[in-house]
Amino acid sequence: MSLFPVPAILRVPAGPGAIIGRPHSDPARRIVKTYRHNVTVHWGDTDPAQIVFYPNYFAWFDESARLYFDSVGLPWEMLMEKYGIVGLPIVEAKAKFVAPCVFRDEIVVESQVSEWNDKTFKLHHAVLNGGLRAVEGYEIRAWTQRRQDDPTRLKAVSIPPEIKAAFE
Amino acid sequence: MSLFPVPAILRVPAGPGAIIGRPHSDPARRIVKTYRHNVTVHWGDTDPAQIVFYPNYFAWFDESARLYFDSVGLPWEMLMEKYGIVGLPIVEAKAKFVAPCVFRDEIVVESQVSEWNDKTFKLHHAVLNGGLRAVEGYEIRAWTQRRQDDPTRLKAVSIPPEIKAAFE
Amino acid sequence: MSLFPVPAILRVPAGPGAIIGRPHSDPARRIVKTYRHNVTVHWGDTDPAQIVFYPNYFAWFDESARLYFDSVGLPWEMLMEKYGIVGLPIVEAKAKFVAPCVFRDEIVVESQVSEWNDKTFKLHHAVLNGGLRAVEGYEIRAWTQRRQDDPTRLKAVSIPPEIKAAFE
Amino acid sequence: MSLFPVPAILRVPAGPGAIIGRPHSDPARRIVKTYRHNVTVHWGDTDPAQIVFYPNYFAWFDESARLYFDSVGLPWEMLMEKYGIVGLPIVEAKAKFVAPCVFRDEIVVESQVSEWNDKTFKLHHAVLNGGLRAVEGYEIRAWTQRRQDDPTRLKAVSIPPEIKAAFE
Repeated sequence: MSLFPVPAILRVPAGPGAIIGRPHSDPARRIVKTYRHNVTVHWGDTDPAQIVFYPNYFAWFDESARLYFDSVGLPWEMLMEKYGIVGLPIVEAKAKFVAPCVFRDEIVVESQVSEWNDKTFKLHHAVLNGGLRAVEGYEIRAWTQRRQDDPTRLKAVSIPPEIKAAFE
Repeated sequence: MSLFPVPAILRVPAGPGAIIGRPHSDPARRIVKTYRHNVTVHWGDTDPAQIVFYPNYFAWFDESARLYFDSVGLPWEMLMEKYGIVGLPIVEAKAKFVAPCVFRDEIVVESQVSEWNDKTFKLHHAVLNGGLRAVEGYEIRAWTQRRQDDPTRLKAVSIPPEIKAAFE
Repeated sequence: MSLFPVPAILRVPAGPGAIIGRPHSDPARRIVKTYRHNVTVHWGDTDPAQIVFYPNYFAWFDESARLYFDSVGLPWEMLMEKYGIVGLPIVEAKAKFVAPCVFRDEIVVESQVSEWNDKTFKLHHAVLNGGLRAVEGYEIRAWTQRRQDDPTRLKAVSIPPEIKAAFE
Repeated sequence: MSLFPVPAILRVPAGPGAIIGRPHSDPARRIVKTYRHNVTVHWGDTDPAQIVFYPNYFAWFDESARLYFDSVGLPWEMLMEKYGIVGLPIVEAKAKFVAPCVFRDEIVVESQVSEWNDKTFKLHHAVLNGGLRAVEGYEIRAWTQRRQDDPTRLKAVSIPPEIKAAFE
């Protein structure tokens, strides 16, 4: 039923914003940190069908992506200054809507890196509502700099290893 | 590069809101109608990177979905009354972001049914900016009624053939 | 400089969400409770000028209005059921923008009833950013029921005294 | 009933986006141009009460303000480059909500400068729905530059006369 298999150890109950993760001596068993972004569903987030208007879930994914980087000591402003990147532009986003959320629900967006590629990475986001999965999705984002020959254009470049390591 | 192959005949240039489509005697060559939803990118739609904040594209998909049904004579209110459905709830949504749109861009969301299933259907949405594809994605929506034994719960039911036919 | 004079006792520093207020034996010295709604300014809340897109402040006022009623034991759903009101529709809203808020600011919307009328009331909202006033405004809302002769139309009716008392 | 008296000549019926105005040899009888911004109320603009979530009206005011300047040949980007201003920051905004707008309503935001001050100006906005006034409000905005002694700070400066003249 789940879009993405999640290791059992990460199927943690919803709780206060927190990071979970620990390095393991065996790289194959290292798990990535998870960030939990607490969101209150407000009246203005819902539509005449009395459920969350679905684009809002992507806004919450976006919020959680940024907070997740903060939580491992990599605020985007610092990355932009230190690495000359122009942010981490979205390349692709997807969500599967399993159960609706309504006004007053206290939900948690649980985010973790589920895939590192050379120039892009995938963030898996699960929205938990009362401990149950309501929405499941992902964002793919790119490590991107301005082109030296034409600063108005962008190019994706290799993600430095220390960035990847920060999430373990 | 394209997420979804689109028949050449449908690769129409961006223009004023309109429907394109025509029945063909050979069912295999019948094409579905396309709806074009014109959107102006306003200041408030963009973010500090000066590009459209991506959840807005999904809001424009949602708008175009409803307008598309209107355009073939199937406003959702009528469907809810006539067929007892509770709207056409979103099941899944995805977008691939090819090129950014900025403040003042006049874009077109070009929508068409790309897949009919028994109880669900897929709407393909392409955002054209100056004739170029900026975003490409889809929504899967379900034909859904309240359960007779428990009206607080929903169940997806078969989509009537006349609904499918209206898009040809 | 302030839009609305606020009694010194209420000029409390920004803090965690909380209610302040206490009944006084002298009605003239009774003060109304205050609610503090904590808001994080996210990337998507800001515009290309890198400051909060101003309509968002009104969304935060609206959120705080509802949370304020919750905090004194009067959730709107209960009011709708018990008193037959249709919510507390907005009649008027105003804001004065003193200083911009930016991405990552942790702001507080401090709300209190500043005026009770027979059928309407005024909520004063102040947005505090690092202890300084960034925005100050108000909402006027009406205690409204459906007309018995025509349920599609609304009429404002007198606010019950126990509602007013709950804020003291 | 109206918040702001509007000269009879300007009480034009809602129509397609257009500018109305003409210079008069007698300055006292010159009228300012009016801009009409057409807006379709979409599903996502409305709330569980099935009416427009009120902060959206301010977003439409903001859109109309920018389009209004465009319509008289003064796009904000040009003003920023030519006059060194940092945009036209909002100082104050107010709206009075007379009648609700609902999903599918085709509304018109009718905007005009109602007051020129030395460093600020007031834009009057009326939302017409089927020819009836649904919302009436204003924005006050400031002509603002960066301070020469400290570019991180802003100061309001005098609005050039040619700017004011462009609206007659």
